[in-house]
Amino acid sequence: MDEKKRILLGHGGGGLLTRNLIDEEILKRFGDGPLRGLPDGALLPSIDGDIVFSTDSFVVSPGFFPGGNIGDLAVHGTVNDIAVSGATPLWLSLALIIEEGLPLASLQTVLDSVRTAADNCGVQVVTGDTKVVRKGQCDGLYVNTAGIGKKIAGFNLGSSQVQTGDRVLVSGNLGDHGMAVMAAREGLGNGALKSDSAPVHRLVHALSPFAADVRFMRDPTRGGMAATLNEIVDGADVGILLREDSLPFSAGAKGLAEMLGFDLLHVASEGRMMCICSAEAAEQVIEKWRSLPEGTDACEIGRITEDSGRVILETGIGGKRIVDVPQGELLPRIC
Amino acid sequence: MDEKKRILLGHGGGGLLTRNLIDEEILKRFGDGPLRGLPDGALLPSIDGDIVFSTDSFVVSPGFFPGGNIGDLAVHGTVNDIAVSGATPLWLSLALIIEEGLPLASLQTVLDSVRTAADNCGVQVVTGDTKVVRKGQCDGLYVNTAGIGKKIAGFNLGSSQVQTGDRVLVSGNLGDHGMAVMAAREGLGNGALKSDSAPVHRLVHALSPFAADVRFMRDPTRGGMAATLNEIVDGADVGILLREDSLPFSAGAKGLAEMLGFDLLHVASEGRMMCICSAEAAEQVIEKWRSLPEGTDACEIGRITEDSGRVILETGIGGKRIVDVPQGELLPRIC
Repeated sequence: MDEKKRILLGHGGGGLLTRNLIDEEILKRFGDGPLRGLPDGALLPSIDGDIVFSTDSFVVSPGFFPGGNIGDLAVHGTVNDIAVSGATPLWLSLALIIEEGLPLASLQTVLDSVRTAADNCGVQVVTGDTKVVRKGQCDGLYVNTAGIGKKIAGFNLGSSQVQTGDRVLVSGNLGDHGMAVMAAREGLGNGALKSDSAPVHRLVHALSPFAADVRFMRDPTRGGMAATLNEIVDGADVGILLREDSLPFSAGAKGLAEMLGFDLLHVASEGRMMCICSAEAAEQVIEKWRSLPEGTDACEIGRITEDSGRVILETGIGGKRIVDVPQGELLPRIC
Repeated sequence: MDEKKRILLGHGGGGLLTRNLIDEEILKRFGDGPLRGLPDGALLPSIDGDIVFSTDSFVVSPGFFPGGNIGDLAVHGTVNDIAVSGATPLWLSLALIIEEGLPLASLQTVLDSVRTAADNCGVQVVTGDTKVVRKGQCDGLYVNTAGIGKKIAGFNLGSSQVQTGDRVLVSGNLGDHGMAVMAAREGLGNGALKSDSAPVHRLVHALSPFAADVRFMRDPTRGGMAATLNEIVDGADVGILLREDSLPFSAGAKGLAEMLGFDLLHVASEGRMMCICSAEAAEQVIEKWRSLPEGTDACEIGRITEDSGRVILETGIGGKRIVDVPQGELLPRIC
């Protein structure tokens, strides 16, 4: 394909140009599965067990950032939502809204990343949609993925399962994704800080032997750990106490957050997960996670308390402050 | 809610404003099902049979048009894709990309329409996502739906099933949706022509007694009947002969198409379906369809021929012309 080729409005018209785009760019990459016949809907085998269904739209700006792009992010985002729901991700849909004038090469790079990420996650892109809007009607490319997974037997998850004394664990450094995207947007840091964008499904599978001890799992994306933790304690009769010196932040994220005035507890990760589990299982979970490449920095960051409805951070010198839900538009278009 | 309220960037930030928007607008309408606990993914019961999975993004402009809006259109679009795949639609996801500044009242109207349409289609909105982008980064509101359906036993569909002598049937007037949206966009016709936006799942169910005689089903959306029919004959050893005087077009759509220079065979419907079935079953199918409110204008428009790879239109005076795949951007953002 000519490197100077760009997406035209006609590529979304449903006629010949659409068909060519689908044939050359979509089927070439995803046509080895149920997408082959280009049906309106993918016909998939029955699932022996409960189903998990999730969706996310991705509008990240810029669409290319150190450590990833909107394509692999869109795969990881939905794979992770399914995984932390206690399920094995199986199939994805892929819906593109493309701005007229987008270089075809950009689209190709994104689609290549979708395929690579899907393969790495063990999922198949089985159905999709392509729309084109005029210049100025979207910002380059928006991507939606929805996904279907199979519930893993044994997990009984939910914030109502959380008990006083349980431990809060995370699989690695927090906030690298949000800060890497902000750095790319503001032209800071020369791309030294990379997004953590990655799948967490293997980390979830590693928990299945401890399923009876796991109360809650989540990937702390928009709103960061602060939003996730506050959601758990909101209206509940438990609270959370975090130890500041145990919070895993990379030096790069810390430096940028200080420079830009962000609290890293409010900043999104896109390849990390947190879980709340019994005190008894915590050490084994950390050990198990650390044995995986994506969990080498796993650690305990706090515990569940009786302090109803509040998330408290205990600082290194013994002070305490409330960890609030982020307010306002801290980090627009981070995912 | 204050009628002057508008969507702010912070409504998509993942913090307090997001939570309020979700609580007040999403949960109020869709919180009576699996969405209640606002999990990252909906936990759904297993399906006893094969699964159909489909997605579509909707970028229709204007978002409100005679006969519908982007909300019910997004429900019908995915419900119909699942239905014509020979399945019963069960669950939908709903992902919103909202432009900062959208009046809250517009969003509320769209969400009300989503709920009403979902109820009418017998589907539940079980999971979703909300993103907000800056002014000028989308055009008001884009909506993605993905859906899961259960395959109806008996259908064995596909363009490869189509045989010479089979009949081409449609459930009603063609092209009303596309022309109604164009009229609204151009300020023509005072809204006299209404979109046909509607679900076709009942029309599909009506076909199940004839499942062995049904070869192919489709809802002719973008690209219209011309695109759908050409897709069937593309590379196949059959062709299609349409009779011009049997094509069902409304007077309103015909008038507008003539004024604007459109071929109605290229124009999208969003509440019609076509099927190809055996000559033996054709009359019974039409009778069955006509017994339903959404099929009163059902008719036969043509038949399958041996004229490999071509769709031919026979005019009233006996002339013939080729019905081409539409080329270029005839009707941008029609769905």
